[in-house]
Amino acid sequence: MIKDTDFPPFPHRHLLGIKGLNRLDLNALLDRADANVAVSRQKDKKKSVLRGRTQINLFFEASTRTQSSFELAGKRLGADVMNMAVGNSSLKKGETLIDTAMTLNAMQPDILIIRHHAAGAAALLSQKVDCAVVNAGDGAHEHPSQALLDALTIRRAKGSIEGLTVAICGDILHSRVARSNIICLNALGANVRVIAPSTLLPSGVGDMSVKVFHSMDDGLKDADVIMMLRLQRERMASAFVPSEREYFHFFGLDRARMKYARPDCLVMHPGPMNRGVEISSSVADGPQSVIQTQVEMGIATRMAIIEALLDPRNPHQQAGESA
Amino acid sequence: MIKDTDFPPFPHRHLLGIKGLNRLDLNALLDRADANVAVSRQKDKKKSVLRGRTQINLFFEASTRTQSSFELAGKRLGADVMNMAVGNSSLKKGETLIDTAMTLNAMQPDILIIRHHAAGAAALLSQKVDCAVVNAGDGAHEHPSQALLDALTIRRAKGSIEGLTVAICGDILHSRVARSNIICLNALGANVRVIAPSTLLPSGVGDMSVKVFHSMDDGLKDADVIMMLRLQRERMASAFVPSEREYFHFFGLDRARMKYARPDCLVMHPGPMNRGVEISSSVADGPQSVIQTQVEMGIATRMAIIEALLDPRNPHQQAGESA
Amino acid sequence: MIKDTDFPPFPHRHLLGIKGLNRLDLNALLDRADANVAVSRQKDKKKSVLRGRTQINLFFEASTRTQSSFELAGKRLGADVMNMAVGNSSLKKGETLIDTAMTLNAMQPDILIIRHHAAGAAALLSQKVDCAVVNAGDGAHEHPSQALLDALTIRRAKGSIEGLTVAICGDILHSRVARSNIICLNALGANVRVIAPSTLLPSGVGDMSVKVFHSMDDGLKDADVIMMLRLQRERMASAFVPSEREYFHFFGLDRARMKYARPDCLVMHPGPMNRGVEISSSVADGPQSVIQTQVEMGIATRMAIIEALLDPRNPHQQAGESA
Repeated sequence: MIKDTDFPPFPHRHLLGIKGLNRLDLNALLDRADANVAVSRQKDKKKSVLRGRTQINLFFEASTRTQSSFELAGKRLGADVMNMAVGNSSLKKGETLIDTAMTLNAMQPDILIIRHHAAGAAALLSQKVDCAVVNAGDGAHEHPSQALLDALTIRRAKGSIEGLTVAICGDILHSRVARSNIICLNALGANVRVIAPSTLLPSGVGDMSVKVFHSMDDGLKDADVIMMLRLQRERMASAFVPSEREYFHFFGLDRARMKYARPDCLVMHPGPMNRGVEISSSVADGPQSVIQTQVEMGIATRMAIIEALLDPRNPHQQAGESA
Repeated sequence: MIKDTDFPPFPHRHLLGIKGLNRLDLNALLDRADANVAVSRQKDKKKSVLRGRTQINLFFEASTRTQSSFELAGKRLGADVMNMAVGNSSLKKGETLIDTAMTLNAMQPDILIIRHHAAGAAALLSQKVDCAVVNAGDGAHEHPSQALLDALTIRRAKGSIEGLTVAICGDILHSRVARSNIICLNALGANVRVIAPSTLLPSGVGDMSVKVFHSMDDGLKDADVIMMLRLQRERMASAFVPSEREYFHFFGLDRARMKYARPDCLVMHPGPMNRGVEISSSVADGPQSVIQTQVEMGIATRMAIIEALLDPRNPHQQAGESA
Repeated sequence: MIKDTDFPPFPHRHLLGIKGLNRLDLNALLDRADANVAVSRQKDKKKSVLRGRTQINLFFEASTRTQSSFELAGKRLGADVMNMAVGNSSLKKGETLIDTAMTLNAMQPDILIIRHHAAGAAALLSQKVDCAVVNAGDGAHEHPSQALLDALTIRRAKGSIEGLTVAICGDILHSRVARSNIICLNALGANVRVIAPSTLLPSGVGDMSVKVFHSMDDGLKDADVIMMLRLQRERMASAFVPSEREYFHFFGLDRARMKYARPDCLVMHPGPMNRGVEISSSVADGPQSVIQTQVEMGIATRMAIIEALLDPRNPHQQAGESA
């Protein structure tokens, strides 16, 4: 049986982003997550470490897979999980995020999982509450649990991330997934490339420790891992929205393009996929795709995050602070 | 205390329809369901047989009563139940059913309950996932848990279904409830009649082992059970939508028409009722109505279905297959 | 460890309003609630007194905080809690409240929490079901759990409610919170004032055992507690809707007005607040505000209500009656 004490205590109170975590922190989370994979494959998937603890999911943006993943993670840890129905609530009808935060805080949750369309929302919330906060995606800023589950997926497939060449392809500009992954993979020693048209690159990409490519053929060369991103047309200014056909022609991943990468190259996608837009079905469903594995790793990773934050040995969980 | 071993193991991996189940299968489910009725009448309604197992409810069509019934069934068995919020999710925004299925599958559920507007959706899903699938209604195809709860309701009231005359009345064409009930009641030895205008009968009704009537007075004659169906005007081509008044005049059930049936005839309706359209309030609330009993039997039946599919003795639950 | 037997049994089957409860009843609920405050402050917030019991939340009006509060209360008591998704259901598509009630009742819940836009809905429901019913707000009628949590908040801050001067300010006409609080605070011995323009006072206010004021400066004089109400513009006939600026000028609470009240006066608001409309931010977030405490007391109070109604010593929970 795996115990908290098998892993070093996690020194942070919240998980707001990958930025600020060092390699030790990341590996401690990945080791915990790795141990949880076996738990979710058992018939009895339940740990009871968080019995009596309260997890609140506060999703201002709809998200089937991330919210479900956090919900199942919390339930499998034995916590009471409550989804706030933001859609038709005062949260939407003009109550400020701070008031919402203060209200939730007064309900004495142990952990709050928040997704919000504004970058920095999770950090703002974390300053107002006594409990642990996990950023499940804030605008174009960060999505740390996604980066961690991606790292776990790669590590389990390749043994180690150190020295691997990872190509992140597509709409880097609007992607918090890309941002968190770039930071995470760099911290773990990968060589990170981004492949995108210049209109879909953030202005500060030069400072991001990545090699920039504008052509798939060049950028995929000898890659060990290809991470495709969802084309988020709803976030683009209308003048810059490419047609789907055009996009696929230049930046879609199909079998022909796969030949530039290493023969044992992994194909990843955070989902939901636009088949035929950023990725062809033959690749998405092909033998090198680990897209379903990413979903599985998602629950194990989120269990690890919640456990690490609520671990009694976490310095912020000591008596005196609200728990 | 009732144990799994009090019932024969259920040989099927999924419950996609009544079609394909034999009398032995049906009776095994009904016996289990019957035993669960007492459980839900206790103060402590909880069994813990499914502790640590995960049930996902995936309802593409809103359904208060069926979804609630499956949710409570799963919770009373001790499972972790998660409702997927389909309404505002990528599931609705164009992700294919197959991609949804693969994503859910990767979350390692033990059982998936699906309702979908397309006939065959549950069967399609079942081919893509490793877990048990229950069809909670797929288009105009089948709704097996409804047929089973109806059979349980009749069996408990009448002792046996063999030889009873059951008249199913109304919109047979659009009704998966009718279809599943016809197959189920025939398999259990009832004489099944359908009463409907020819515009509300499916073209293949001649092959369905039922006697067809176009008049309530004739069709109800000596019936032991009357099953009224909900008039589903939203599913009808506009030219054929009867006015509610007209419909009630010809095919509604009121006290006057009850006299054609046997004096101890049961009145059933799957709900929600259109009072004054297919059934009068005096009948719906009258002494022969078992409409509320059907709802109660619903939970007991769905507990039985879930238990039978996840029973360790179910051949598809053995090690080697995902559980 | 606190046990049911530490409190006198609650003699009522339902909690439909504060009206009809005597001082003994109210204090028994407040004592129980007070004991629950400590429970929610522990890491393990879970009692298991209601293991295997079923709580159904049936909210016809969206309510983030009340529904969440009842949900967490039920879960922390160990009950299975099910939220009925009223929004897109047959409940909304014309099924009568009675049919809904009968359907829910057949699912054998132990307790039903209902919010409905029609005054009297909870009482109507309670006549049709075998289980305990809690009114979580019915039209402009009552919102008893809010009044109880407000009383608990005051009692904990002030020691006792007897003899305190409480000024309830704002839209009395549309406020079930005001109504329940007036009855509750009077029963507990407070001197209750209401401050509102005559257009926002109910016609029967003269019979309500309150002193009526039309000016904040007069009404706040020497108050021990100020309860602000949410301005519910959506409920007002359009001719009478004040502008927000105008409203704040005459009936908003800001620091300047606070000086009329006692220096240790509490400021309360049921939430969600319209900052700058009925209350200024400096007051809402100031040292005399107990607005967040009210939310915390909400869970403790709702746990107490559920416990008192399902206490085996409650005369309506005896064998013979459905439980």
